[in-house]
Amino acid sequence: MGDKNRQEQTLIDTIKALSCDENLKDVCHLRRQGEPLPSQQAVARIVELCRGLIFPGFFGDSDVNCNNVNHYIGIRCEQLRDLLVEQITAGLCFGDTTPDAINLPELKCLAREKASVFISRLPELRRLLQSDVRATYLGDPAAISTDEVIYCYPAIRAISNYRIAHELVKLSVPIIPRMISEQAHSETGIDIHPAATIGEGFTIDHGTGIVVGATAIIGNNVKLYQGVTLGAKSFDIDDDGNPIKGIPRHPIIGDNVVIYSNASILGRITIGAGAVIGGNIWVTEDVAEGEKLVQARANNFLRFKQ
Amino acid sequence: MGDKNRQEQTLIDTIKALSCDENLKDVCHLRRQGEPLPSQQAVARIVELCRGLIFPGFFGDSDVNCNNVNHYIGIRCEQLRDLLVEQITAGLCFGDTTPDAINLPELKCLAREKASVFISRLPELRRLLQSDVRATYLGDPAAISTDEVIYCYPAIRAISNYRIAHELVKLSVPIIPRMISEQAHSETGIDIHPAATIGEGFTIDHGTGIVVGATAIIGNNVKLYQGVTLGAKSFDIDDDGNPIKGIPRHPIIGDNVVIYSNASILGRITIGAGAVIGGNIWVTEDVAEGEKLVQARANNFLRFKQ
Amino acid sequence: MGDKNRQEQTLIDTIKALSCDENLKDVCHLRRQGEPLPSQQAVARIVELCRGLIFPGFFGDSDVNCNNVNHYIGIRCEQLRDLLVEQITAGLCFGDTTPDAINLPELKCLAREKASVFISRLPELRRLLQSDVRATYLGDPAAISTDEVIYCYPAIRAISNYRIAHELVKLSVPIIPRMISEQAHSETGIDIHPAATIGEGFTIDHGTGIVVGATAIIGNNVKLYQGVTLGAKSFDIDDDGNPIKGIPRHPIIGDNVVIYSNASILGRITIGAGAVIGGNIWVTEDVAEGEKLVQARANNFLRFKQ
Amino acid sequence: MGDKNRQEQTLIDTIKALSCDENLKDVCHLRRQGEPLPSQQAVARIVELCRGLIFPGFFGDSDVNCNNVNHYIGIRCEQLRDLLVEQITAGLCFGDTTPDAINLPELKCLAREKASVFISRLPELRRLLQSDVRATYLGDPAAISTDEVIYCYPAIRAISNYRIAHELVKLSVPIIPRMISEQAHSETGIDIHPAATIGEGFTIDHGTGIVVGATAIIGNNVKLYQGVTLGAKSFDIDDDGNPIKGIPRHPIIGDNVVIYSNASILGRITIGAGAVIGGNIWVTEDVAEGEKLVQARANNFLRFKQ
Amino acid sequence: MGDKNRQEQTLIDTIKALSCDENLKDVCHLRRQGEPLPSQQAVARIVELCRGLIFPGFFGDSDVNCNNVNHYIGIRCEQLRDLLVEQITAGLCFGDTTPDAINLPELKCLAREKASVFISRLPELRRLLQSDVRATYLGDPAAISTDEVIYCYPAIRAISNYRIAHELVKLSVPIIPRMISEQAHSETGIDIHPAATIGEGFTIDHGTGIVVGATAIIGNNVKLYQGVTLGAKSFDIDDDGNPIKGIPRHPIIGDNVVIYSNASILGRITIGAGAVIGGNIWVTEDVAEGEKLVQARANNFLRFKQ
Amino acid sequence: MGDKNRQEQTLIDTIKALSCDENLKDVCHLRRQGEPLPSQQAVARIVELCRGLIFPGFFGDSDVNCNNVNHYIGIRCEQLRDLLVEQITAGLCFGDTTPDAINLPELKCLAREKASVFISRLPELRRLLQSDVRATYLGDPAAISTDEVIYCYPAIRAISNYRIAHELVKLSVPIIPRMISEQAHSETGIDIHPAATIGEGFTIDHGTGIVVGATAIIGNNVKLYQGVTLGAKSFDIDDDGNPIKGIPRHPIIGDNVVIYSNASILGRITIGAGAVIGGNIWVTEDVAEGEKLVQARANNFLRFKQ
Repeated sequence: MGDKNRQEQTLIDTIKALSCDENLKDVCHLRRQGEPLPSQQAVARIVELCRGLIFPGFFGDSDVNCNNVNHYIGIRCEQLRDLLVEQITAGLCFGDTTPDAINLPELKCLAREKASVFISRLPELRRLLQSDVRATYLGDPAAISTDEVIYCYPAIRAISNYRIAHELVKLSVPIIPRMISEQAHSETGIDIHPAATIGEGFTIDHGTGIVVGATAIIGNNVKLYQGVTLGAKSFDIDDDGNPIKGIPRHPIIGDNVVIYSNASILGRITIGAGAVIGGNIWVTEDVAEGEKLVQARANNFLRFKQ
Repeated sequence: MGDKNRQEQTLIDTIKALSCDENLKDVCHLRRQGEPLPSQQAVARIVELCRGLIFPGFFGDSDVNCNNVNHYIGIRCEQLRDLLVEQITAGLCFGDTTPDAINLPELKCLAREKASVFISRLPELRRLLQSDVRATYLGDPAAISTDEVIYCYPAIRAISNYRIAHELVKLSVPIIPRMISEQAHSETGIDIHPAATIGEGFTIDHGTGIVVGATAIIGNNVKLYQGVTLGAKSFDIDDDGNPIKGIPRHPIIGDNVVIYSNASILGRITIGAGAVIGGNIWVTEDVAEGEKLVQARANNFLRFKQ
Repeated sequence: MGDKNRQEQTLIDTIKALSCDENLKDVCHLRRQGEPLPSQQAVARIVELCRGLIFPGFFGDSDVNCNNVNHYIGIRCEQLRDLLVEQITAGLCFGDTTPDAINLPELKCLAREKASVFISRLPELRRLLQSDVRATYLGDPAAISTDEVIYCYPAIRAISNYRIAHELVKLSVPIIPRMISEQAHSETGIDIHPAATIGEGFTIDHGTGIVVGATAIIGNNVKLYQGVTLGAKSFDIDDDGNPIKGIPRHPIIGDNVVIYSNASILGRITIGAGAVIGGNIWVTEDVAEGEKLVQARANNFLRFKQ
Repeated sequence: MGDKNRQEQTLIDTIKALSCDENLKDVCHLRRQGEPLPSQQAVARIVELCRGLIFPGFFGDSDVNCNNVNHYIGIRCEQLRDLLVEQITAGLCFGDTTPDAINLPELKCLAREKASVFISRLPELRRLLQSDVRATYLGDPAAISTDEVIYCYPAIRAISNYRIAHELVKLSVPIIPRMISEQAHSETGIDIHPAATIGEGFTIDHGTGIVVGATAIIGNNVKLYQGVTLGAKSFDIDDDGNPIKGIPRHPIIGDNVVIYSNASILGRITIGAGAVIGGNIWVTEDVAEGEKLVQARANNFLRFKQ
Repeated sequence: MGDKNRQEQTLIDTIKALSCDENLKDVCHLRRQGEPLPSQQAVARIVELCRGLIFPGFFGDSDVNCNNVNHYIGIRCEQLRDLLVEQITAGLCFGDTTPDAINLPELKCLAREKASVFISRLPELRRLLQSDVRATYLGDPAAISTDEVIYCYPAIRAISNYRIAHELVKLSVPIIPRMISEQAHSETGIDIHPAATIGEGFTIDHGTGIVVGATAIIGNNVKLYQGVTLGAKSFDIDDDGNPIKGIPRHPIIGDNVVIYSNASILGRITIGAGAVIGGNIWVTEDVAEGEKLVQARANNFLRFKQ
Repeated sequence: MGDKNRQEQTLIDTIKALSCDENLKDVCHLRRQGEPLPSQQAVARIVELCRGLIFPGFFGDSDVNCNNVNHYIGIRCEQLRDLLVEQITAGLCFGDTTPDAINLPELKCLAREKASVFISRLPELRRLLQSDVRATYLGDPAAISTDEVIYCYPAIRAISNYRIAHELVKLSVPIIPRMISEQAHSETGIDIHPAATIGEGFTIDHGTGIVVGATAIIGNNVKLYQGVTLGAKSFDIDDDGNPIKGIPRHPIIGDNVVIYSNASILGRITIGAGAVIGGNIWVTEDVAEGEKLVQARANNFLRFKQ
C-alpha cells in the first residue's frame, strides 16, 4: 500500500512537472485558434488517391473496367480535392509563424486555389510517372511486365511520392511535401528531398539508402542504385554559426547518367551527360560528359589465406 | 464565386483528361472479367499465418498451450489454404497476358493444387527457419535467447518472407512472391529476390541495405552484415537494346562464408567455402576457399590534424 | 474430386506434422500459466504516448491549448502507466526462463515499480530530446523550424525510441526495449541498440543504414550521417565456440564528433572529441582529439573515357 | 493448482461433448464444399447501397452534387451488383437441401441473372418509396420536410427494407429477404414479412410492435400506427400435426385504410377501402368499405376515486 | 456470354435511369456548397460523451478515479464542444431551405453559440437524470443498485437521449434532436418526441412500444410502463388537406401519475396529479386528480373450456 | 472575439461544476483499485461465442466442416473461458459494495470457478435450445427450415440470451446476466428477465414488446406472441416506502400454454397446463388447466358508417 501511494505521488508530480509552463516552451504545439494540424493519415490518403488516379485499377481496391473508369476517376478527384484543401490549410497554419492571429478563412481560400492548381497537374504527373515506369521496366532484367513495376516496385512508390510532393513545393505548400517524402523514405529507405529537381525517365534499383538533397538537379533518364548519395560536402555558416539556408550545395546530374551502388556524389559539382559512376566511390569534383569512373580495385583490399 | 467556378471547371477538365482512352493506355489495369487483383493485405496475412504456423505462440495474438496448439494449427492451416487459393488465383490472373479471355475456373483449380503443395512444405520451412534462428542466436553476442530472435529480429522476418516467397516461386506463382519480398524489404531494408537460392543456417546482422539478386546462390551457414550487395556487374542486352531476362548474373556463395558490412560482390563469380569478405570492399572476381579479403586500410584515407 | 480428396488429405497430414510434439520443440512459445505475451501494438502505443507527453500537441490527434494541456498530460500519463505495467509484466514473463512456475503477482508488482520510475524520468527525457531537436535544427540547412523537426524528421523518431528504450534497459526490463528499437529500425532504417550510451544534443542526418552497437558510448553533440556503422570488429568466443556476451566491443565517440556517410568505426576504439571522420571510410584504430580523416580520393577510383 | 487442473479437465470434457458427432446433428451447419454462408454484414451493406442509390446524398457519407451524382450512382450500382451476386449465391446454397453435391458455378450463374433483374427494378423501387415518403410527410404534423422523413424516420427504414426484400422474394431468393426484414425489425420494432404485398403510398407512424404477416395484402395509401398486427387467427395443420405452409391466412386491407395503434386484424378477412379501425381493438371479421370501428370506451374501464 | 452482355447493358441502363435529372427531383440531397451533412455516428458520439460527462466512470471505457476525474471531464467537454459545433452547423444547413446560398461562416458562428449554451446546461442535465435514476431504482423491485440502473437500464438510455435532445430543441437546432431520439427509439423501442416536456423523477419500466408525442406535457415523478401511448386523437387539416403543424394535440400528465402497460391516452386531455391509469385501456377524456381507472375485466373476455 | 472568450469561460466553468466533489456523489463510478468495469462489447462477444459453440457453422464467420469442427470448438471454448473469467470478475467487482478494499485475486479465483461451471453446462444449453428451435419451426407456417430458424429468427436470439444469462444468474454472477438480457431486449424488443424460469421447447412469434418478469415460471412447450406481458400486478412496499425485493410477483405458466398477442397476465397467478389465452386481454386471476380465454369481441368496439 505504501508502494502504491508513493507510485501515485510520483505520477502526480510528473504530471505537474510535464505541464508547467516553463517546461512546455518550445516542445508544445499550441493551436492558437483551433486551427487544424496536418495529419499523417490524411497525407498518406492523398498519395493513395493520386496513385489511384494516375494508375487506375492498380490501387484503391476497386474493380475498374471500361464502363466505370470515369466514375472512379470522378469520385476520387473530388475526394482528393477535399483532402488537399484540408491538409494544405493545415500546412499553411503550421508554417505560419507570425505572432498575430491566423486568418483561417483566408488561408483556406488560398488552399483551395493551390489544390485546384495541383489537380490540374495530374495529367502531367501521369505522363512523367509513365516515363519512369517504362525506364524501370527496361532497365531491370528481373522485371516481368510494366504492370509488375507499377504494382510492386518500391522505386515507383518513392518516385511517385517525390513527384507529388514536388508539385506541392512548387505551390509553396509548407510541411506537407516533407511529410509525403518522409513516408516514402520510411517505406522504401529512399530519401528524396521534395525540393530536388528530377527529369523524366528516372529510375532506381533496390534503392535502400539513397539520399537526394534539396538543391540537387537530375536530368532525364538517370538511373541510381541502392545507397547512392547526392549530398552536400559542407555548408556555409552565418556569423552566428548557423547554416545559411537555400544555397545550392548538391550536385547537378546530366541526362542518361548511371550511378552504381553506394557511390557518394558530394557538393555543387556537375556530372556530365552520359557519365557512369561506379559503385562505392566518393566523388567531389566535376565529371565530364561520357566519362566513366570505376573503383581502383587493385588498391582496395588485401587478399590473404586465413 | 468566380474562383469557385473556375476551380470547379478545372476539376471537370482534369477528370476528363484523366479518363480519356488515349491517356489510359498502359497506366490502367482493366480487369477483363472481374478477376481478382492481388491484395497487399491478404498477402501480408498469408505471411502472418505462415509465421504463426511455423512458430506457434509467438504470432497471432493467441494463448497457445499444450492442450490447444493442435486446434490453432488446424484452424490456421485452413485459413492459410483459403487465402492462398484466393491470392494465387489473383496472381495467375495478373500474370496472364494472353489476349484471350481468362479461364477463371481453370486458374482457380490450378491455384488449389499449388496451395496444397505449398502447405505440404510447411514442415520443411519450419526446419529451415529453425536452423536460421539457431545460427542467428549463436552469431550475435547481444542475443539473449532464441525466443528473442524469433520474436524481434528483422533478420528472421526477412528470411521468413524469403523462404515463403521462394516456395511460391518454385510453384511458378506470378507476382505474389515479389509482393512478399517487397513487404520484408519495406519493413527491414533487406531486399532478397524470391528467386535466389539460399541454404540452411542463413543469418543476417542488422541487415538494412542488403541486396541479394535473383540468380544468386548461397550455401549453408552463410552470414551477411548490413549493406552487403550480391549484385550483377552488368547485364546482356538483346538486339533491341533490352536486357535479356533469366541469365545467371549474380554470385555463388559457398558454405560458411561471412561477408561484412557494405561489401559488394558483383557478377557471376564464386566465393569459395569458408571465405571471409571484409567490409566496404568491392569484389568482382572469384575468391578461393578459405581466403580472406580485408580493406587495404593504409591506402584508404588521409589522416591530418584539423 | 480425386484432387479435392488428395488435397484434403495433404492438409490433414500437414496439420498433424506441424502439431506433433517433437516438431514443436524450440519453435513453440507455450505459456505456462496464461501469462501475457508482449504486444507490438501496445509497445508502439507506449512510444506514441511518450512522444505525446514529451511534445504535447504534435502527436495524438488532439487540439491542445493552454486551458487543456494539463488535462491531456494527466490522462495520457495514466494510460502510459497502465500500458507500461502490462507490457513490462509481459516482458518479465518472456524473459523468465526459470524452470519453475512464474510468480505472476510478484512480477506485476515489480512491473508497477519499474513503470513508476520510468514515468518519473519523463521530464529528463523531454530535456534530452529537446537538446536533440535543437541540434538537428541547427545542423540542417533544409530545416525550416524546430516544429518541422519534431513533427517530420525520422532522426527524432529514432532517437526518441532509443531514449525511451534505454530508460527501460536501465530498469532491467527484458525484450520491450528491443521491440521499441526495432520498431524505429523498421520505420527509419536506423538501428540503435537500446543498451548503447548516448549524450545530449545527438543528431542524425537522413539516417538510413546507421548501426550503433550495444556497448557503444557516444558523447554530447555528436552527428552521424546515413550508413554510419559503430560496430564490433570481432567478438570473443568461449570454449564451446559461442560468442561471449557483454564484453565491450563497440567504439567510444567523444563530444562534438562528426561522422560522414557510410563510414565504419569498428571495435573498442576511441574517437577523440571534436574529430571528423570522412565518408565511406573504415576505421579500426583510435583517432586523436580534433583529428580529421578523409578518404584518399586519388587512389580510390580510375577515371577514363568510355 | 488442484482447482486449475479440474477446471482444465472440465474444459477438455466439454469440448469433447460439444464436438462429438451425435451431438452435432441438426445444430451444426456443415458446408459441404466450402460454399459461402449468407453474411449479416453484407446484407446490411446491400440495403445501405440500395438506399444510397434510391436517395442519393442522404446515405453513404458522400458529398453529392450535380457534377458527380452520376459517378456515385455508377460506382454504387456496380458494388451493389457484386454484393448481390455473392449473397444471392450464398442464399441459394443455404436453401439448397438436396442431398447431392451443390453445383456452385450453376448457382452463381443463376445468382447473376437474379441480381441483374433486381437492379433493373431500382427505378421502380425509387418511385414506390418516393410515394411512401410523400404519404408519411403529409400524414405527420410533426414532420418538417420530406428530407427529414427520408433521413430520420424509422418508418422509411422499415418500408425500404420491406420493398427491397420483397423484390428478392419475387425472384425466389432464399433466406436473404428474411435477413433484410429482420434487420429492419431489430432496428425499428416493425416486423413486415417480405412476402407480404403492399401498395404505394404506404405509411407507418411510430411503428414499434407492428406485425404484417406473410400472406397479407395491403392496398394503396394505407396507414398503420404502432402495435398494429395483421396476423393469422389460426393455421391449418396436416395429418402429422405440422402447420401447412403457404395457405392465405392474413388479412386483405383495401386502399386508404387507417388502422390505429395496437389494433389486431386477424385471419383472411377483408377490410374495405377507406375503412378506419380504432386503436386497441381486435377484428376477426370483414369490415365494409368506409366503415369505422371504434373502441367501446364506456365498457372498457371502471373509473373510481382512490 | 450473351447473358453477360445483356446483364452489363441492364446495369448501364439502370445507372442512366437513376441518374437522369427528372428522376432525381425530391429524392436527392444535393449539397449546394459542400456544406456538411449530419452524421449518425457523430450524433451517437455526442450522446456518448454527454453520458460520460454526466455519469463519469460508467461510460467511455476509462479508469476514472479521484485524481483524474477532472482531467477526463475537461478533455471530454472539449471533444463534446467540437462535435456539437460541427453537427449543429450540419443541422442548421440541413434545415436551411432558403433558395439563396447558405452563409456557412454565419451558421457556424451561430452553432458555436448554441453549443456553448448547451454545455452550460450539462450540470442541470445531470441533476435531472440523477432524479430519474433514483425514481427508477425506487420503483423497481428487481433493481439492485443505482449503479445497475445507470449502467444497464434502457429507460435511462431513452430518457438521457430525450433530455439531451430536448435541450437542443430549446436551442432551435434542426434535425439533430430527432436523430438523437430515433437512436434511442431504435435501441430501446421507446419513442419520446424531443419536443415533449417532461418533469424530473421520470421513470419507465420495460418501455418497449412507448410513444410520447411532440406536444405532450409530463409533470414530476411520473411512471410509464411498456406500450403506453401519449398520442394525438386526430389532427386539424388546413384547406389543402394537409395537417396543421404545431397545434397542441397530446395529453398533459400531472405529477405522480402512473400509467400501466399498453394504455393509450389520446388527445389534448389532462390526467390529474396522482391519477393511476390501468393497463390496456384507452382514455380520450380528462381524468381527475387522484382518480384511478382500471380495465373492466369482467366484460373483457369470455372464458370457456376447450 | 468577445463571444469566443465568453464561450471559453463557459466551458471552463462547466468543467469545474461537473468535476466538483459534491456534484459527483452518486453519479460517478470511481474504481477503487483499478478493478475492471464490465464491458458491453465483451459481453456481446461472450454471447456470440456461446452461439457459435451451440450452433457451429452458423455464427462466427467460419467455414466449418467435419474435419475442423472440433478445432473450432476447442479454440472458441478457450476464448469463451478467458472472456468469462474477465467479465465475471468485473461483474463481481461491480456488485461488491462493501466499504472495504476489493480483494481482486480472490474475486478472480471465484470467477474462474464460475466460468468453469458455466462451460460445463454448454451441452445442456445446446439441448435446450435445440428443443426451442424445433418448437419454433413446427409452430410457424412461414418457417422454411430449422436452419432458417437458427440463423434468422429473433426469437432464438432472445431465448439464447435468456438461457445463457439464466445460467449466470444460477451462478450468482452480478450484472452480467442483466447486460446479456438487455442486449437481446434492444435487438429484438423481447424483454425476458434472466432470473425467470423457463422450460424446454419454448417459442416466441414476432416477439416485439414481450415482457417476462423476474419471478415468472414457465413450463415446457409454451408459446408467446408479440406484446405479451407476464408482469406484476403490484409490489409490496416496506416501512420506508421502498419496494421489497425478491417476493414472487409474476405468474406461473403451465406446460403447453399458448398466449396470443398483447395479452397481459399479471400477478402471482397460475395459468393451468394446456390453457389458451386470447390476444389483447388482461388476466389477473388463475386460469384452469385446458381453459380458453378469448376477447369478448361483441363488447369491444362500436361499428358504424363514416
